[in-house]
Amino acid sequence: MNVVIVGLGNLGSAVATVLARNGHQVMAWEFNQAVVDELNQQHSNSAYLPAVAMPKTIAATSDSQQLPLAGADALIITLPSRFIEQTLAGLTLPAGLPIVNMSKGMNPENGETVCQTLQRLFPNNTLAQLSGPSIANEFVAGVITAFVAASSCHSLQQSLAQLFNNDSLSVQFSTDIVGVELGGIFKNCYALGLGIVGQHAVAGLNFSGAFLTLALQEMRSLAVAMGAQASTFDGLACIGDLIATALSDNSHNRKMGQLLAQGLSLAQIEQQLGVLAEGYKTLATMLPLAQQHGVTLPLAQLINELIEGRLSLDNFCKGFNALLKSPC
Amino acid sequence: MNVVIVGLGNLGSAVATVLARNGHQVMAWEFNQAVVDELNQQHSNSAYLPAVAMPKTIAATSDSQQLPLAGADALIITLPSRFIEQTLAGLTLPAGLPIVNMSKGMNPENGETVCQTLQRLFPNNTLAQLSGPSIANEFVAGVITAFVAASSCHSLQQSLAQLFNNDSLSVQFSTDIVGVELGGIFKNCYALGLGIVGQHAVAGLNFSGAFLTLALQEMRSLAVAMGAQASTFDGLACIGDLIATALSDNSHNRKMGQLLAQGLSLAQIEQQLGVLAEGYKTLATMLPLAQQHGVTLPLAQLINELIEGRLSLDNFCKGFNALLKSPC
Repeated sequence: MNVVIVGLGNLGSAVATVLARNGHQVMAWEFNQAVVDELNQQHSNSAYLPAVAMPKTIAATSDSQQLPLAGADALIITLPSRFIEQTLAGLTLPAGLPIVNMSKGMNPENGETVCQTLQRLFPNNTLAQLSGPSIANEFVAGVITAFVAASSCHSLQQSLAQLFNNDSLSVQFSTDIVGVELGGIFKNCYALGLGIVGQHAVAGLNFSGAFLTLALQEMRSLAVAMGAQASTFDGLACIGDLIATALSDNSHNRKMGQLLAQGLSLAQIEQQLGVLAEGYKTLATMLPLAQQHGVTLPLAQLINELIEGRLSLDNFCKGFNALLKSPC
Repeated sequence: MNVVIVGLGNLGSAVATVLARNGHQVMAWEFNQAVVDELNQQHSNSAYLPAVAMPKTIAATSDSQQLPLAGADALIITLPSRFIEQTLAGLTLPAGLPIVNMSKGMNPENGETVCQTLQRLFPNNTLAQLSGPSIANEFVAGVITAFVAASSCHSLQQSLAQLFNNDSLSVQFSTDIVGVELGGIFKNCYALGLGIVGQHAVAGLNFSGAFLTLALQEMRSLAVAMGAQASTFDGLACIGDLIATALSDNSHNRKMGQLLAQGLSLAQIEQQLGVLAEGYKTLATMLPLAQQHGVTLPLAQLINELIEGRLSLDNFCKGFNALLKSPC
């Protein structure tokens, strides 16, 4: 099959690699000319996917007009969410070209999820959200990984299975785009929070188990208020992704939390990670959304106060401990 | 309050320690006279809770007739499940003495859970199951830890909150004894399984996220067929305990899996761990139970075949990978 990937960061480079290894024809767009040149000439991406030999069949360009959209079977979006509208707004997509979103973020200005933005920009193209516990550094290294393809279009789900399925990668189907997307988006805030607190002496797996249980309950309650199916939160795209992202040192969001705990400024973190982790802006968007939907998110609020410096780590722990106690 | 604890293994010693630190009067029974003597004379348990100074107020005995049951507010059971009936069958309990079970296992001979055995032995005593993500080595070291007190008796739940609640420990209430107990029991099998597979090259947090998602789905489906409330599986005693036990190197069940993966025999493992982890016998009990209830547990079956040597690790991974794919 022929695939166009937009964005050659960590995720996009890993997706391009596994799809090319599966024998598909991959053409990628990337803003950063140095990344494009390195990929085309050395078949690697030392900045975002170090130590991985990328298949020579992958081609890259920084000129979106050169993308072979007319012959493509899918357009896969792997950009950080804040670059999506400015990157895609100028593109004219063939009517039949399916869009597959792998980004997990929200626009802080209008509260749109990436899928909502894509639906607004390209109302005539079918859409899938591809999510699940899928840390890029892991699946490109052969770790068994399951994706969830959420779409109302069954043939698009089947195409995604055809593209990804192999001995280590699997695609599971869902029709709940809203739930699958929101699960992937919301979990970043809690992964970031656990990254901050995870090094504290009171943290351990008892703590993480309790933290992730409350996180899942909060994510589900807000998402259901926004139209998601509750059962989606028992699945790979929610609980599975939450566990992987919150506990993996390869996770951008957890890493940003760890850097915040070390006292780095946002500017220093942006420099070190290339871009601020999605959970940071999502948190600021999620809390007003929850208020609007009449849903309380006490753990997300504690994380927000911790990030904004209005709560010490000790007081965060006191507050968290209080959330765990039933009133007597 | 006055508490009697039965069993001074890792869990019992940690519970005795935190309750005594909370100012309660603790008397403990233990079969092993060396453990009793060390506790009474040196206020430590070097075999099962090394490097922890236990409060001097804890007293221990190996003579169950000396236990101050008449004045006790609760009898807490922390024995491995296989020793429970033989240890407790001879005891006469005061009618008003509540029993608090913290063991998480099943009797392979009759399929009874520990709570079912306790209800049979002491039909006139109120009962609570105390569960949750509560690795003993962690909560005794101050890690924030939440327990779930499942009981139909609200005043017993309140007593447990009074006993345990402090700056790092919390008690949450549930009325679903069946669900809370089965969650704690079943999760051991999956923790054992993840312990075996966790060192393999195809394992990582993507794998663990997918594995734990399937595990939770299976645990819930069997427990619901056995009378549990489905929503209990969204709570601390199920998802929280599953995460902590399956991922902590302090977990007996995960550790047993790791030792199996290293090729140790059951006898060698029993010698190293003191007792075989609960998940091992639970798995053999759980699978026929599932069949009896018409529930399929494909992941538990794969783990069982792996343990019994009928499946190689590579074929386990193939089988697991197949479980993750939706049929096209």
